[in-house]
Amino acid sequence: MTTRWKLRIEYDGSGFCGWQRQADAPSVQQAIEEAIFKFSGESPTLHAAGRTDTGVHARAQTAHFDLEKDTTPDTVRDAINFHVRPNKAVILDAEIAHKDFHARFDAIKRSYRYFIINRRAPLAIKDNYSWHVARPLDIDAMQKAADLLIGKHDFSTFRARDCQSNSPIKTLDLLKITQKDEAIVIETEARSFLYHQVRNMVGSLSLVGNGNWSIDDFQTALKACDRTKGGPTAPAHGLFFWEVTYPQK
Amino acid sequence: MTTRWKLRIEYDGSGFCGWQRQADAPSVQQAIEEAIFKFSGESPTLHAAGRTDTGVHARAQTAHFDLEKDTTPDTVRDAINFHVRPNKAVILDAEIAHKDFHARFDAIKRSYRYFIINRRAPLAIKDNYSWHVARPLDIDAMQKAADLLIGKHDFSTFRARDCQSNSPIKTLDLLKITQKDEAIVIETEARSFLYHQVRNMVGSLSLVGNGNWSIDDFQTALKACDRTKGGPTAPAHGLFFWEVTYPQK
Repeated sequence: MTTRWKLRIEYDGSGFCGWQRQADAPSVQQAIEEAIFKFSGESPTLHAAGRTDTGVHARAQTAHFDLEKDTTPDTVRDAINFHVRPNKAVILDAEIAHKDFHARFDAIKRSYRYFIINRRAPLAIKDNYSWHVARPLDIDAMQKAADLLIGKHDFSTFRARDCQSNSPIKTLDLLKITQKDEAIVIETEARSFLYHQVRNMVGSLSLVGNGNWSIDDFQTALKACDRTKGGPTAPAHGLFFWEVTYPQK
Repeated sequence: MTTRWKLRIEYDGSGFCGWQRQADAPSVQQAIEEAIFKFSGESPTLHAAGRTDTGVHARAQTAHFDLEKDTTPDTVRDAINFHVRPNKAVILDAEIAHKDFHARFDAIKRSYRYFIINRRAPLAIKDNYSWHVARPLDIDAMQKAADLLIGKHDFSTFRARDCQSNSPIKTLDLLKITQKDEAIVIETEARSFLYHQVRNMVGSLSLVGNGNWSIDDFQTALKACDRTKGGPTAPAHGLFFWEVTYPQK
């Protein structure tokens, strides 16, 4: 009998071409699928809550797969972690899911965090986990602009050209900016996001923060529903796929 | 006329053999001294508040040097940061110090932080900045043991064999352990520390935390004044030289 397994996965995006399997580059999906094969002899497909790009990290990606082998949650976690080495991806925990559970379609909330270090000096420590912005950022202005994005909007201005979503209309539930000394954190939550949406929102917010754009400029960009009117795409290495929420069982 | 400069320096210990210049390995001191030469044509010696070992990071090491060249704090910081690349060391800020200022001898407090991630799964993210401990640690027990070290003691049990300090007697001002989810932080402060003292204290505390040692065992080890009675040396990569304090000017 087949068991459906749910995994929470942490990975460092810098060693991968992103989540999704590609013919010619190392993906997180491939690394974990191969580890599953090594311990079980089976080759199930791993379905993730969301795809992440090259360089984007995951604090807790969620994925599911089916296995014939009769085993335990501890064994699934430890065996994959053993075989996935030296890849920088680990299973935080494994649990048996309902046979109809789907990591992507059942998710009711996805959250991301974007990390900025705002200071003159370059980064010597953890430079792969934050975007270094040398010009001072005004986070009060950024939060005012961010507030304009809350709710249901056409997010075309923040949508990558090759986004495959059916619609550019999304509902943003949270976009909160906090600062502690030189560290700025941007938290965001929605049921789902367009391709590159978080990095594009952050890039445009940075223009407000550094004074290049007024709040009105930001509003105008949003209303244009045109990616060419938006700001730059913030670098991948500042972004963490933070958490996926599913309905209570 | 010579100007004495004070630098605050951040570095990632993994790319270096430690702070101190060595004939056959890349040190932080050498990297920065060479950058100073490249921008000024001068070859002053850089004196640090404390030496750090291979792999130990610095959030804010402090050092001083003398320069004939007439220049500004912004130029000193930016020019060293430009020339030090691609080494993972940066000048956070530079300021003109009193001509008698000495980064090592004038320091009245040094603080270190040691980071542990306490969970079953290995680390995929920031694995170079924390010690991964798989066995559950009881931080209440660790804090009780830590409290025994506060004040003036013979710290021989926590002193590396090749420590060059005149005396094993030191006064420990702070040793505080906090936990948030899987992350444990150990903060410590003293005027000065013995060689490997922080990593040796953390290693012994981990034995209390995982139940191998009772508080009495820890006390017995301390009183033995004998390194061979102490616990293991915690790994270098979990340790950050956090801050150096000088008297108010």
